[in-house]
Amino acid sequence: MTRRAGGSNDAPKVALIVQKFGGTSVGSIERIRAVAERCLRTQREGHKVVVIVSAMSGETNKLLKLAHEVSPVPDAREMDVIAATGEQVSAALLAMCIQAQGGSARSLLGHQVKILTDGAFAKARIKTIEGSKIFSTVDKGQIAVVAGFQGVDDNGDITTLGRGGSDTTAVAVAAAIGASACEIFTDVDGVYTTDPNVCPSARKIPRISYEEMLELASLGAKVLQIRSVEIAMKYGVPVHVRSSFSDAPGTWVTGEDKSLEDVVVAGVAYDKSEARAHVIGVEDKPGVVAELFEELANRNVSVDMIIQNATAGASERADVTFTLPRTDLLRSKPHVEEVAKRLGAAGVRYDEDVAKVSIVGLGMRSHAGVAAKMFRILAKESINIQAISTSEIKVSCLIHEKYTELAVRALHDGFGLEKEPKDATKA
Amino acid sequence: MTRRAGGSNDAPKVALIVQKFGGTSVGSIERIRAVAERCLRTQREGHKVVVIVSAMSGETNKLLKLAHEVSPVPDAREMDVIAATGEQVSAALLAMCIQAQGGSARSLLGHQVKILTDGAFAKARIKTIEGSKIFSTVDKGQIAVVAGFQGVDDNGDITTLGRGGSDTTAVAVAAAIGASACEIFTDVDGVYTTDPNVCPSARKIPRISYEEMLELASLGAKVLQIRSVEIAMKYGVPVHVRSSFSDAPGTWVTGEDKSLEDVVVAGVAYDKSEARAHVIGVEDKPGVVAELFEELANRNVSVDMIIQNATAGASERADVTFTLPRTDLLRSKPHVEEVAKRLGAAGVRYDEDVAKVSIVGLGMRSHAGVAAKMFRILAKESINIQAISTSEIKVSCLIHEKYTELAVRALHDGFGLEKEPKDATKA
Repeated sequence: MTRRAGGSNDAPKVALIVQKFGGTSVGSIERIRAVAERCLRTQREGHKVVVIVSAMSGETNKLLKLAHEVSPVPDAREMDVIAATGEQVSAALLAMCIQAQGGSARSLLGHQVKILTDGAFAKARIKTIEGSKIFSTVDKGQIAVVAGFQGVDDNGDITTLGRGGSDTTAVAVAAAIGASACEIFTDVDGVYTTDPNVCPSARKIPRISYEEMLELASLGAKVLQIRSVEIAMKYGVPVHVRSSFSDAPGTWVTGEDKSLEDVVVAGVAYDKSEARAHVIGVEDKPGVVAELFEELANRNVSVDMIIQNATAGASERADVTFTLPRTDLLRSKPHVEEVAKRLGAAGVRYDEDVAKVSIVGLGMRSHAGVAAKMFRILAKESINIQAISTSEIKVSCLIHEKYTELAVRALHDGFGLEKEPKDATKA
Repeated sequence: MTRRAGGSNDAPKVALIVQKFGGTSVGSIERIRAVAERCLRTQREGHKVVVIVSAMSGETNKLLKLAHEVSPVPDAREMDVIAATGEQVSAALLAMCIQAQGGSARSLLGHQVKILTDGAFAKARIKTIEGSKIFSTVDKGQIAVVAGFQGVDDNGDITTLGRGGSDTTAVAVAAAIGASACEIFTDVDGVYTTDPNVCPSARKIPRISYEEMLELASLGAKVLQIRSVEIAMKYGVPVHVRSSFSDAPGTWVTGEDKSLEDVVVAGVAYDKSEARAHVIGVEDKPGVVAELFEELANRNVSVDMIIQNATAGASERADVTFTLPRTDLLRSKPHVEEVAKRLGAAGVRYDEDVAKVSIVGLGMRSHAGVAAKMFRILAKESINIQAISTSEIKVSCLIHEKYTELAVRALHDGFGLEKEPKDATKA
């Protein structure tokens, strides 16, 4: 982090900036030209520019389709060799576009940078990133165009990072070279207090903490890949999520500061992709719940909310409710029921018509009564709460799916999210 | 060359075989499956197999078209980054197909092998090839699928070898690992005594020397890339040119041996791609011809035949005739005429309706009268010879284009090429 710019106001204003452009931003030669213009503009402002690109939208899927013609389960190593060509092409095309506009640029592939990963093909994790090739490129006044999504393992085999991997590449590169910012250009213009399609008074958040962003990202606000936020948080990389179609500032995702803490609730998220399972009357003794969830974990079902509570009445029995992805429900049922039977449960009920609404905010840690206020707001709309789970900076309620939009709007209004918080304007 | 197999009859019959498949051989998933079958068959015969693949036919052109949308003269370095993806995809697809058929295979890209080249993008020349990755692959019983056409330079930049570069990769890899043979699978089933489309009695040559193949290749029999034959000759790699559609043996291109030398004329070639320029009456003194051809070399015009002869009569003047690619004629004319004027020439005449017919054969070195016999055969058909050039193993005559086919058939018959030579059957 020795090279990180910023901090002192006396320091020269030359910064090292990482800019990431996704698949739709480089979806055609025309769009790539626009990206080239933007990179050059940033360079002309006096900055050293490193660009991370995804494959042209549609390209990767086209390539993978070819592979699936060969085999329904093609070899993972060879899949990555094919998948990596998408970013290879778009990186070279962007470098060419920058040159065609009079600039100087150089494409760098995963193995050239080099971005060292583990050997888990299709979902590799970055171990280290060498900065020397990037530094020698930008120090010559060239724009370094790095192919996103790809790396190379200890054997020199090509690996890919999985869906959304270019965000991860961008933030990890920014961390490795100590960039002063990582700009993620996307087709939305920032992170909103909630989904603007559901709530017209949703407001763009100028500044949000990594923790809040993580909760929002995993709750369904699919702006930034979760893993990239984790890396940004770990290395303190300021991330700027902004529109590739306009110059307006977007949302800065940064470490928390005083002003952020004063915002009690930063956003409202919802998620309609889960189903609820309700295991009735299992023995209320140690190890019972473990057995159920071990079974599901072994089947690769990721369970989200888990609520256990003793059944009303004198019996020593408890109900266990949990949520799981709807897409996993069908294949999970036999396993759930088998374990339930073994545990002496009275039965299992399922419900697919559920939604999870959540409020997220750093300020909850120091403000009492936030959860209570949420329940009151929902109650006022006569929305029944089926389950509750909380973390330090989040409260989630499971409700009937049909009330989702009503709940989101009520919470957004109830917590006053349409109003710009006083402190955020200082950011 | 220590690992080269063969020689002793007592040695175990495990050989290291390089097989190369061109763009049409891997033009579809169906075709790639057929290639996979053939590689596996060779492996089941007890051999270690290294396969070199080109890009799926059409793919490279599609990619380069994209690049040309960006710029009429796209950066050569970035062009190679894009062009190399074609072979990257086909190598991985072939590895997958081999796996899908129960075999074991692994794709290897230029930088993984590694194939080190100079930094001349789009026309790089191979400097060294490391064998270790290929050996460790085949020693594990896997088929090594090497992406043709590509390499990497000292900076780690991706380079390509130019059109037909996969032949070069194949022969160079075979030389580097001491393979006992390099099989070039193509859409013709071997090298013929002449073009079968012109001369129905043309016969497949079972065995031909590198030198003869070089002369035939450069004279228009486009079966093998010239550069790959040069490498094969330099390192003594036996090359087997054969059909990817049948199992019939093709043509072996090897070092000369006794039997080959006894064949006086191995083949008849023709070339209709040249034009003739005739500079009349230049001063017959040292340096005059040099000035003309230096000028053309500076303009990147490659001149083929050059004939200088004193004009009949008493004057100290000479005529200079040369041939050059027809496609270069238009842009060359002003330069030729300017130099001709400077040299005091009486004028320049051009003729595009010319063709070059050639006979090629190692035996010419020890047989007198071969050229004379060629001239007699052409004279018998009333074909006028406009220019003659000879090398140790070749005689070329420039004639009017309309007589090309007649001349080829007459020479093929006249030298008895339709008959299998006695000695070649021993090969």
